Amino acid sequence: MVDKNFQRCLLSIFGAVIVTVFVVFNFPNPLSERAELLQCATNSAWCTSKNRILRHPTDAVLRHDHTSDVPHHPLDPLTIQEMNKVQKVIESFFNKSAYAVHSLVLEEPDKEVVLKWRKGDEPPPRIASVIARAAGKNYILTVDVESGAVAEQDTSHISGYPLVTMEDMESTIRAPLASAQFNRTIVERGVDPNDVACLPFSPGWFGKAEDGRRLVKLECFTIKDTINFYMRPIEGIIVITDLDTKEIIEIVDKGKHIPIPKGTGSDYRLAADNSAIIKLPNPISMEQPNGPNFVIEDNHLVKWANWEFHLKADPRAGVIISGAKIQDPVTGVVRNVMYKGFTSELFVPYMDPEEAWYFKTYMDAGEYGFGLQSLSLDPLNDCPRNAKYMDAVFAAADGKPYVRPNIICIFERYAGDAAWRHTEPAVVIGQEVREARPKVSLVARFVATLANYDYIVDWEFHADGLIHAKVSLTGMVIVKGTSYVNTNQVNDSEDMYGTLLSDNIVGVVHDHFINFYLDMDIDGTDNSFVNVHLQREYTKNNAPRRSYMKVNKTVAKTEKEAQIKLKLYDPSEFHVINPNKQTKVGNSVGYKLVPSGGTAASMLDPEDMPQKRAAFTNNQIWVTRYNKSEQWSGGLFAYQSHGDDTLQVWSDRDRAIENTDIVLWYTLGFHHVPCQEDFPIMPTVSSGFDMKPVNFFERNPILRIAPYVEKDLPICKATASA
Amino acid sequence: MVDKNFQRCLLSIFGAVIVTVFVVFNFPNPLSERAELLQCATNSAWCTSKNRILRHPTDAVLRHDHTSDVPHHPLDPLTIQEMNKVQKVIESFFNKSAYAVHSLVLEEPDKEVVLKWRKGDEPPPRIASVIARAAGKNYILTVDVESGAVAEQDTSHISGYPLVTMEDMESTIRAPLASAQFNRTIVERGVDPNDVACLPFSPGWFGKAEDGRRLVKLECFTIKDTINFYMRPIEGIIVITDLDTKEIIEIVDKGKHIPIPKGTGSDYRLAADNSAIIKLPNPISMEQPNGPNFVIEDNHLVKWANWEFHLKADPRAGVIISGAKIQDPVTGVVRNVMYKGFTSELFVPYMDPEEAWYFKTYMDAGEYGFGLQSLSLDPLNDCPRNAKYMDAVFAAADGKPYVRPNIICIFERYAGDAAWRHTEPAVVIGQEVREARPKVSLVARFVATLANYDYIVDWEFHADGLIHAKVSLTGMVIVKGTSYVNTNQVNDSEDMYGTLLSDNIVGVVHDHFINFYLDMDIDGTDNSFVNVHLQREYTKNNAPRRSYMKVNKTVAKTEKEAQIKLKLYDPSEFHVINPNKQTKVGNSVGYKLVPSGGTAASMLDPEDMPQKRAAFTNNQIWVTRYNKSEQWSGGLFAYQSHGDDTLQVWSDRDRAIENTDIVLWYTLGFHHVPCQEDFPIMPTVSSGFDMKPVNFFERNPILRIAPYVEKDLPICKATASA
Repeated sequence: MVDKNFQRCLLSIFGAVIVTVFVVFNFPNPLSERAELLQCATNSAWCTSKNRILRHPTDAVLRHDHTSDVPHHPLDPLTIQEMNKVQKVIESFFNKSAYAVHSLVLEEPDKEVVLKWRKGDEPPPRIASVIARAAGKNYILTVDVESGAVAEQDTSHISGYPLVTMEDMESTIRAPLASAQFNRTIVERGVDPNDVACLPFSPGWFGKAEDGRRLVKLECFTIKDTINFYMRPIEGIIVITDLDTKEIIEIVDKGKHIPIPKGTGSDYRLAADNSAIIKLPNPISMEQPNGPNFVIEDNHLVKWANWEFHLKADPRAGVIISGAKIQDPVTGVVRNVMYKGFTSELFVPYMDPEEAWYFKTYMDAGEYGFGLQSLSLDPLNDCPRNAKYMDAVFAAADGKPYVRPNIICIFERYAGDAAWRHTEPAVVIGQEVREARPKVSLVARFVATLANYDYIVDWEFHADGLIHAKVSLTGMVIVKGTSYVNTNQVNDSEDMYGTLLSDNIVGVVHDHFINFYLDMDIDGTDNSFVNVHLQREYTKNNAPRRSYMKVNKTVAKTEKEAQIKLKLYDPSEFHVINPNKQTKVGNSVGYKLVPSGGTAASMLDPEDMPQKRAAFTNNQIWVTRYNKSEQWSGGLFAYQSHGDDTLQVWSDRDRAIENTDIVLWYTLGFHHVPCQEDFPIMPTVSSGFDMKPVNFFERNPILRIAPYVEKDLPICKATASA
Repeated sequence: MVDKNFQRCLLSIFGAVIVTVFVVFNFPNPLSERAELLQCATNSAWCTSKNRILRHPTDAVLRHDHTSDVPHHPLDPLTIQEMNKVQKVIESFFNKSAYAVHSLVLEEPDKEVVLKWRKGDEPPPRIASVIARAAGKNYILTVDVESGAVAEQDTSHISGYPLVTMEDMESTIRAPLASAQFNRTIVERGVDPNDVACLPFSPGWFGKAEDGRRLVKLECFTIKDTINFYMRPIEGIIVITDLDTKEIIEIVDKGKHIPIPKGTGSDYRLAADNSAIIKLPNPISMEQPNGPNFVIEDNHLVKWANWEFHLKADPRAGVIISGAKIQDPVTGVVRNVMYKGFTSELFVPYMDPEEAWYFKTYMDAGEYGFGLQSLSLDPLNDCPRNAKYMDAVFAAADGKPYVRPNIICIFERYAGDAAWRHTEPAVVIGQEVREARPKVSLVARFVATLANYDYIVDWEFHADGLIHAKVSLTGMVIVKGTSYVNTNQVNDSEDMYGTLLSDNIVGVVHDHFINFYLDMDIDGTDNSFVNVHLQREYTKNNAPRRSYMKVNKTVAKTEKEAQIKLKLYDPSEFHVINPNKQTKVGNSVGYKLVPSGGTAASMLDPEDMPQKRAAFTNNQIWVTRYNKSEQWSGGLFAYQSHGDDTLQVWSDRDRAIENTDIVLWYTLGFHHVPCQEDFPIMPTVSSGFDMKPVNFFERNPILRIAPYVEKDLPICKATASA
């Protein structure tokens, strides 16, 4: 459900512009300094729109002057000052010749350094990790922020390209209009070239055609009569363009006979049709008049109830959770649970083999940057009223920093559910017991908009130790133009590769896979992965009961033993344990992975190129030996990658994974056969998984939480307008 | 996770007593009338405790004088006056000799009568359905409420017994103490007979031993030193008792060497250890100062947003949702979605073949009554502050009605999530768009406490047409005594059949299956079931892309074609469509079943007796031809049933199900390998499924819902105590 190409284009412009926005609206500094950082003048449309957003009353929450940010924690992202230093080093490294920065982030210190660090310690040396291109070559550099020393890593053995920059997208989005052939085609289709908008889609890699040059495939739409131009594709036209030279390589046009859908009823804005607004008369709200129960120390360290974790935006992953620890209610000790967790890669293959569609097999994080594709959240509708917000500082293609405000929200949730409960009539114990406890959790939310699609990623922390990761899909289904306006026009033998959603609009069948990197460190780095297999066992001696389900635990010795496909009829639980630490009664402490829906598996042939490139979807669960460089399950250079640097490749090395530092990987999957309800904008669909303590605590860790009593709850009255 | 036997015992007393409670606290009537209905004097402990509960401020919501209830809707449950009439008819039918009423509920009118009925019409004749036992025989009677006419149905061909009554349980719970052998055994184990409490467990049916008589297997606990006696089993003692004669048939004692766990730290009450209470300092609450957006017309008809449905308590099913209809936002027409939905049966097999455990294979709804096992909800902790409550009127074994107050809650939920959202940078369309909508839903909740286990059943209605059914498990895991206090004492070859949870306590492995009856009537009664199969397809002619996923729809012709096991690697969507009605573009209108977690399948041998009795777990999805009498998937008489009246048997008739009135059945499954966090009370675990519109609407039905704006939201302040 993600067409990143379009998003790329939009955000390429956005990327260049947001720097400006940042300066103009975020800094209480002199104007001269602002002007140096951001070029608002050249991007006034953006500045204006961002200006509007920033006026929203709750946008100011957590806002502060990022120019004076200093790192407090070894994992804090690079600050504006640090990025500016690094930018000068890069400029000088490339000797003032043309270059583009594709990524500029903190090179996280080695794990042992981070684990040893304590608040108040001297921070470890700050190193920047830079991915850049210059003169047609990929560069991986590390820059010592203080000394400016640069180290270069050999990239010649790695296929593919780094994620496209906003500037890449911006520079190609208008390229087709420079072609007379393209303009002719468009006019023949009855579209005014002034109404054309093209979106840059990643081409994948299928061999020769994509070899040796960085390509983009542009697909075009008309923006006439609706803001929801996604519903008005100029079907069948693909403009293949070289991202480095900007040269148009080929214009494919297979859609001459296909009318452009009219886009009727596709505008989803409130303002589009005020007469038809449906509103529940009595508002319902999550209220917390005393403020939240969490604090965010030093901009990134979130502390709530028994949890603490480091939270930051990342241009590629969206958000990164680090050092998630929970306090043991019995001993008071703060215990390690997860060293690092993030969405490592996505895979969104469309199921249409035709020429304008077959290559649509996106890997959003590695091709476009899941974090780069975010926009500020709507403070009352993306997140509840009690949320606090966090900004991102990202680098533009010139290496200079910009701020993207409010792309993460953090809030406590109470949804009316019980954390535990029991009622006991008085019969046995002489008194009736009715004990129930409210379930309150903490959510860290991030939303990426990949052109048409919106991905909402929630990390939810529960006081009972459970971490729930959830991905919700909404936004627009990318559609295909068709000549049909009714299914009765379709020949039985014809495959539309999707559902007729509206006149001349087909929602093409596709999948979404989201792969999570979960570096679990249960009470320390040395952990094991245990397959807790549930198998049918037969009783003996003509017992009345013939069969039962028996638990059989197997510790995975090597990576291949931990390549797991979920099996409903041959089930297992999947535990990460610390074999060196037991509870009082002798169980190894651990956490288990619990899928909850979203278990769709990839249906592509394993040897199909898109599948090889996204081979992390070959299994649902993987466990690898910790290797700092193995973070991006679709490969470091995912764009046009050949599938030679994937989780499958690493895992096939079959390294020992018993009682050592291991990383768990889990892939959430959705099959999406579109339906008319997805038009023109799709109601949210969610799935997720839990990381759940299993013999981690000696007993229920929330046994002693307090129930709600009336006198503690807020006193609320309706506002005048309600 | 459900041991109903215990619950039965507790509730048997409760059942008799609640009548009293009802009279004393619910009726603003003269005392004389109350005294006639309820015997509070003989059950003072109960009255006292209920009295306390009923004082809670929100308990009064929806409370009214049930003595004057009259039926308004054809599906309204029998009123107190109607039950009293029927009770007199039954008494007279059995000619004043001994009888026990096991069920007394409304015999719902035929579907066509209900569908034709309109508000204001004369209500159809009221008929009571009565299941009773007298002189060792099962009776199925229908009683015309007005005329008193009785019709008797032949029951000789049906194996098993009706669910046990509260009085059955009450009368057997103390039976063991009358046995000298039992008392000797108990004393030998170091337990004072005054501290012994036994719980009546259903014996299942394994052949000869359970043949021809209604049995119960009592297991005993000590109630000394903790209210959580479940954690103090007197392991290995099973007292087999005849429920009709009260005769003790056998005392099995295989646990002499097993110490009784001390129960240390097992008291979960707030009052148990006030010093250790953990409380988040700042309360968070779901607030709705203007009141709810739903109304409950005539006590049972819930209307909220675009939904309406009939809601009632049922002694066997817990709650029944009927006539769920949604208003089409385009046409304004109120459209049928689901004629009836409820939890039809449960299956909870424990995975321990030893003598005191092998028979523990409960079918809670049919053996004990899922509804009968409910207690009043905690108004601030079981449900949010903005909830409204609904009572149940059930019949005691003498046929007389009693009220169980507040066992259902209804509330609107806003959990901080978006119903849909999209952001669009200004690049293409010249203006930034940021549109998001809050997700507000309506929840109808019911909680059954089956002895140790608590099942929370939620029916959640979303404005986008989705119905989410969810079951949450909490309460206590039933445990087994053991001599071990550390896993290092356990021989490698020994199977404990569970996890050592605490000193001398094993949490035995078990499953939970909850089977839902879903009579979908999509825009009418004649529907079809479509398997929307997703299969790998190969491209031709050396195309760059080798494979894709193709949709292949098959309409199930007969019941056997709709016996479905979910397959992760051979996936399908499952649609119920109306083949006679299409959308404007020609798609058949429909709903799809979407499992979301909880897909565990039964691991027992299909020929094992417990599995045959609970054969509804052989598949996850079934579709049967509508037959009014086929409602209880484990059989009408589930207690000691032989498996000859199950969903499997009905479905194997292989009736035609295309374009006719059909019923969809779905089974939610949980494997539960207990862990220490489950001791002494288990944090809630949830799973569910969606019924989701698929081409039911022409487009997204919540396209035009309003976003939240600050001025509409309530103004709240903290209370003094917070």
